[in-house]
Amino acid sequence: MGLLDEDRLFPLDGRARDVARDLYAGIRDLPIVSPHGHTDPRWFAEDRPFPDPAQLFVTPDHYVFRMLASQGVALTDLGVPRMDGGPTATDGRAIWRLFASHYHLFAGTPSRLWLDHSFQHVFGIDRRLSADSADWYYDRIADCLARPEFRPRALFKRFNIEVIATTEAATDDLRWHRMIRESGWDGRVVTAYRPDGVVDPEMAGFADNVALLGQQTGFDTATWAGYLDAHRARRAFFQDHGATSSDHGHASARTEDLPQADAAALFQKALRGACTPDEADAFRGQMLTEMARMSLEDGLVLQIHPGARRNHSDPVMAIHGRDKGFDIPGRTDYVAALRPLLNAVGMRPDLTVILFTLDETAYSRELAPLAGVYPCLRLGPPWWFHDSPEGMRRFREMTTETAGFFNTVGFNDDTRAFCSIPARHDVARRVDCGFLATLVATGRLHADEAPALAHELTYGLAKKAYKL
Amino acid sequence: MGLLDEDRLFPLDGRARDVARDLYAGIRDLPIVSPHGHTDPRWFAEDRPFPDPAQLFVTPDHYVFRMLASQGVALTDLGVPRMDGGPTATDGRAIWRLFASHYHLFAGTPSRLWLDHSFQHVFGIDRRLSADSADWYYDRIADCLARPEFRPRALFKRFNIEVIATTEAATDDLRWHRMIRESGWDGRVVTAYRPDGVVDPEMAGFADNVALLGQQTGFDTATWAGYLDAHRARRAFFQDHGATSSDHGHASARTEDLPQADAAALFQKALRGACTPDEADAFRGQMLTEMARMSLEDGLVLQIHPGARRNHSDPVMAIHGRDKGFDIPGRTDYVAALRPLLNAVGMRPDLTVILFTLDETAYSRELAPLAGVYPCLRLGPPWWFHDSPEGMRRFREMTTETAGFFNTVGFNDDTRAFCSIPARHDVARRVDCGFLATLVATGRLHADEAPALAHELTYGLAKKAYKL
Amino acid sequence: MGLLDEDRLFPLDGRARDVARDLYAGIRDLPIVSPHGHTDPRWFAEDRPFPDPAQLFVTPDHYVFRMLASQGVALTDLGVPRMDGGPTATDGRAIWRLFASHYHLFAGTPSRLWLDHSFQHVFGIDRRLSADSADWYYDRIADCLARPEFRPRALFKRFNIEVIATTEAATDDLRWHRMIRESGWDGRVVTAYRPDGVVDPEMAGFADNVALLGQQTGFDTATWAGYLDAHRARRAFFQDHGATSSDHGHASARTEDLPQADAAALFQKALRGACTPDEADAFRGQMLTEMARMSLEDGLVLQIHPGARRNHSDPVMAIHGRDKGFDIPGRTDYVAALRPLLNAVGMRPDLTVILFTLDETAYSRELAPLAGVYPCLRLGPPWWFHDSPEGMRRFREMTTETAGFFNTVGFNDDTRAFCSIPARHDVARRVDCGFLATLVATGRLHADEAPALAHELTYGLAKKAYKL
Repeated sequence: MGLLDEDRLFPLDGRARDVARDLYAGIRDLPIVSPHGHTDPRWFAEDRPFPDPAQLFVTPDHYVFRMLASQGVALTDLGVPRMDGGPTATDGRAIWRLFASHYHLFAGTPSRLWLDHSFQHVFGIDRRLSADSADWYYDRIADCLARPEFRPRALFKRFNIEVIATTEAATDDLRWHRMIRESGWDGRVVTAYRPDGVVDPEMAGFADNVALLGQQTGFDTATWAGYLDAHRARRAFFQDHGATSSDHGHASARTEDLPQADAAALFQKALRGACTPDEADAFRGQMLTEMARMSLEDGLVLQIHPGARRNHSDPVMAIHGRDKGFDIPGRTDYVAALRPLLNAVGMRPDLTVILFTLDETAYSRELAPLAGVYPCLRLGPPWWFHDSPEGMRRFREMTTETAGFFNTVGFNDDTRAFCSIPARHDVARRVDCGFLATLVATGRLHADEAPALAHELTYGLAKKAYKL
Repeated sequence: MGLLDEDRLFPLDGRARDVARDLYAGIRDLPIVSPHGHTDPRWFAEDRPFPDPAQLFVTPDHYVFRMLASQGVALTDLGVPRMDGGPTATDGRAIWRLFASHYHLFAGTPSRLWLDHSFQHVFGIDRRLSADSADWYYDRIADCLARPEFRPRALFKRFNIEVIATTEAATDDLRWHRMIRESGWDGRVVTAYRPDGVVDPEMAGFADNVALLGQQTGFDTATWAGYLDAHRARRAFFQDHGATSSDHGHASARTEDLPQADAAALFQKALRGACTPDEADAFRGQMLTEMARMSLEDGLVLQIHPGARRNHSDPVMAIHGRDKGFDIPGRTDYVAALRPLLNAVGMRPDLTVILFTLDETAYSRELAPLAGVYPCLRLGPPWWFHDSPEGMRRFREMTTETAGFFNTVGFNDDTRAFCSIPARHDVARRVDCGFLATLVATGRLHADEAPALAHELTYGLAKKAYKL
Repeated sequence: MGLLDEDRLFPLDGRARDVARDLYAGIRDLPIVSPHGHTDPRWFAEDRPFPDPAQLFVTPDHYVFRMLASQGVALTDLGVPRMDGGPTATDGRAIWRLFASHYHLFAGTPSRLWLDHSFQHVFGIDRRLSADSADWYYDRIADCLARPEFRPRALFKRFNIEVIATTEAATDDLRWHRMIRESGWDGRVVTAYRPDGVVDPEMAGFADNVALLGQQTGFDTATWAGYLDAHRARRAFFQDHGATSSDHGHASARTEDLPQADAAALFQKALRGACTPDEADAFRGQMLTEMARMSLEDGLVLQIHPGARRNHSDPVMAIHGRDKGFDIPGRTDYVAALRPLLNAVGMRPDLTVILFTLDETAYSRELAPLAGVYPCLRLGPPWWFHDSPEGMRRFREMTTETAGFFNTVGFNDDTRAFCSIPARHDVARRVDCGFLATLVATGRLHADEAPALAHELTYGLAKKAYKL
């Protein structure tokens, strides 16, 4: 029987389900295009075995450990590292047992779908995970991980990944990407330019990062002009390592288009650490517009991932640091926020700006109306907490009528959990086929139009939007 | 087979679909009551043939050209006029070919449903529009338009329109409405009082408009009292031309109920062009309450259409002007905003205030709770970007449980695209029948109660709410 | 046939409906756990017959009279009392006829489901309510109410209520709860600690209430330390009367964690009536954190019910006072608002804070992400305007994927209308079984996992979360 229902996520109605099943059969085996994510390029560079099951599935996956934390499990009992190097669990089997005994918490969540998909498809498991089966599972997965066909490059091929983008800081040396290229391996792993550390005056080490950027590029980043030139040079360096996009994760979607003299003055203030919070936000906003202008020069696609209120818990931040499941979405405005950038370059059809959101209320009210008229704008897929069957359904229901399909860009898995990549793409493919099937079954789309759209949503739009 | 599925937009489930089909059969042929829209009264006054297909379907329809613009088609290539009279495409056939070659962009949108409905029902076409069929389409439609049965008055009758309301500025001379009346034609075309140009201090030409209002009415609109009297007189003039409603399209839903002396002082400031943005907003808000008080005198229904952030793109506004698809919705508050008006006149059952929204989050949180208790309030149907199958479904799902059906007012097509009127009403009728059928099939409504409700939603509520 | 469809609220699809029906059969007869509501403990203390049908179903139920008011029925014609003791309808039969003649307004609302459920299940009626049947209904219900098996304690048993919590002000003497206990009756009726009157500086009589709290507890509530001790003592007094929770109904979800000296100074200002609105809000926020700290000492569960803009209509407030259907929800922020409390005590697994909302946009954006990671947080069920089939569906669809089921707490009826209690729980049970069945039928949950979850959602989670 297996862990997975063959018809999962298709419409309930038999007629629509049949259409969905046919559409899915037509695109199921298409290669995975993964244009945005956070896998570690070192995996593919070194191709070492993944460590134990707990370190593969539990310790690095904030979706998993945040749910356990919500029911009172201590992060240290799950092996989440401490900033001070203090004690944290290291026994993989003990961590796995703790995880297994709480597996019922995931009922109804996408994590459950992704995990079961991985267990079944990657590790050939058809038994359910629970306290009872914990050890059996641990042994089975550990055995697999020791075998060559479970190394990163082998899984990359088995997952049918055509291309995957990682995300690196602007000052990253991209050594792993270079190592991949120099290894002669034919897997396509590209980077993306993530300059948060050198454009956000509130990021720890901002001035040092900017100085490093200067050293790396040979430009005088103590001046506004030199700073912009350094970005240009660094973007070119990233493009040499395959990058086709930049990525920006600010708390808001604010953009600015200040006179250059004012921007230069603000930059000096930022370097001195003298910005008020509003000025820091304005500087980040200015840099989005500068990045858009650079995209018109070099062709990088600009991704905006706004809205996370990061590190919500002071005690968790103090003990464990960033990216520990305590980033919480907040309301995000796009209409006023994006206006300066759009007034500057929004009508340019040779620019691509991909908008994401953690605030679903923006879908029908702001994002679809904006993407449905500005030539440069495209809508990224449901992101983070909304990368789920219901989240995907809401996205299509709330954006398609105003923005259509062709102002969207296919799926992003956006994950740090390697084994979840095929699982996540499979969920997106099923939900999209189900959505198209529902349109067909309710007379909103002709049956013969649907297969080509399914192909676009699965493959074509991502390739085109991200220039991959 | 035709372009349209006979069962389109009905529930997927067979049992519910059967109920929906029966309900729809009972109301499908009811006459169209169109209580709010933007058709041109000149059409019905002069009854001249519509010009070519592109000028009928593409150039004036912002739903259509905004989608093409979003994919990089220049507005000038679609014949959208320039403010400076500069060059824009004029070859109808070339524009039509451009439209046809992008028709796939509309998959899944209501525009596609409206257009296909028009093609099939108005022009008898059963072939799909594409680059291949563009010329065939153009010739077919152009041929039709040359025939008398495709003139505005003939279509009006064929569309089974019982009454249609247009919308005119307060200072409009209503000559076309007079010409219709004097022609002896029995089609019922009424106007509506839209005073934005004389109540919004930020509208270009505000003081001149107010002066013109004075000339038209004989009142001294340099004084607050005279200004209010001029409104009263002008409303009466509009009522003489059939108006049963006024309409107000402010950026917010703000209302005020200032002491009259303060309102008078604010008016003087507005005339001098000296209002701050907040004062201008307050003045617009004050005028909503004044209009509500006048409605208690003369019986006009007051419509509030708030929330559009108009003319979002400065370059498009500079080149093409207003109403070119670049109005974007924004968050809209109703609870605090409407309180001054509601405290003044909200408990009067002889007043009707119809609320619309571009912010769907207000449906269940604000609009349904407000309309579900204040006797003067009614909820307008889904509007603009939300006038779509999913938008209509969300409206019913999010308002019915708190406000019921009888605090809603039927459908508004609100369109400038004449041929889309029967298509839009047909979509609303199908979605409403589907919603009622779902209530029946899930035991929330008795089957024998549904037909009368379907009749109300299609016909009765609009007639009553708008006093038509 | 009856008024009710046996399969009401189950999924339309036959396969999913079968699963839902089976799940429902397994939990339908579980006892009712009612952990939060507003029934009157005096009913159970005195066990007198309920007065006439109008006073049972119409006059005290704001859901009912607000709908009638929305269509122009005067509150005084429904017997809603006036603050000045002025005239209001007293003839139960006349009120009932007015209600019956407007019963069609409730089509599609949960009130209709609750009322029909009460009519059928409590009073054995299978005829529909309308103007025609009004007198028949009135006589039938009045006859029943005169019989012993329709007294409060008998209905309590017949409704299969295992435990019910009422809500009393902190300064309430709890005499009725004492009387229930001393009567030897075995029905379990517990209180809950609602300190709004002694923590909200903007509440009329705040200083007097605080003084009374001092008298009741023997602490000097003129000092900050004494005021906190008085709360501790009063909470213990409530615990002696069965309380397992406190409840807080502020306009916002704001919390504060000020230095104690600052909090003390703010308290003095509050006592003097000198707080600005922002200071009053800060004081309420400080008290939420203080209450959370006390919960860590005494174990009371802390409920936060924010977001109502109360007494929206000044004229209605002036004539009829509070709780007359004119409370309107507004936007509510949780992410920034709860941060001080969560930074102080949010990682404590021995604390339970249950969050409610009137702003459904917070479900997927804020509440599920927060409850899905903080050990102390749980999500209360859909509340007030959202305690409805569509509201419950949206709640599950928008929270489950991020927070799972185990960070929710089952159902609250939260009602003043005693007869609606079994009806409301039945709606929740049906909708939850339908949701689980949909997960099963779409391959997101194994069929054998669903019954235990149905049991948890119906019974287990409420017992555990509220420590009942």
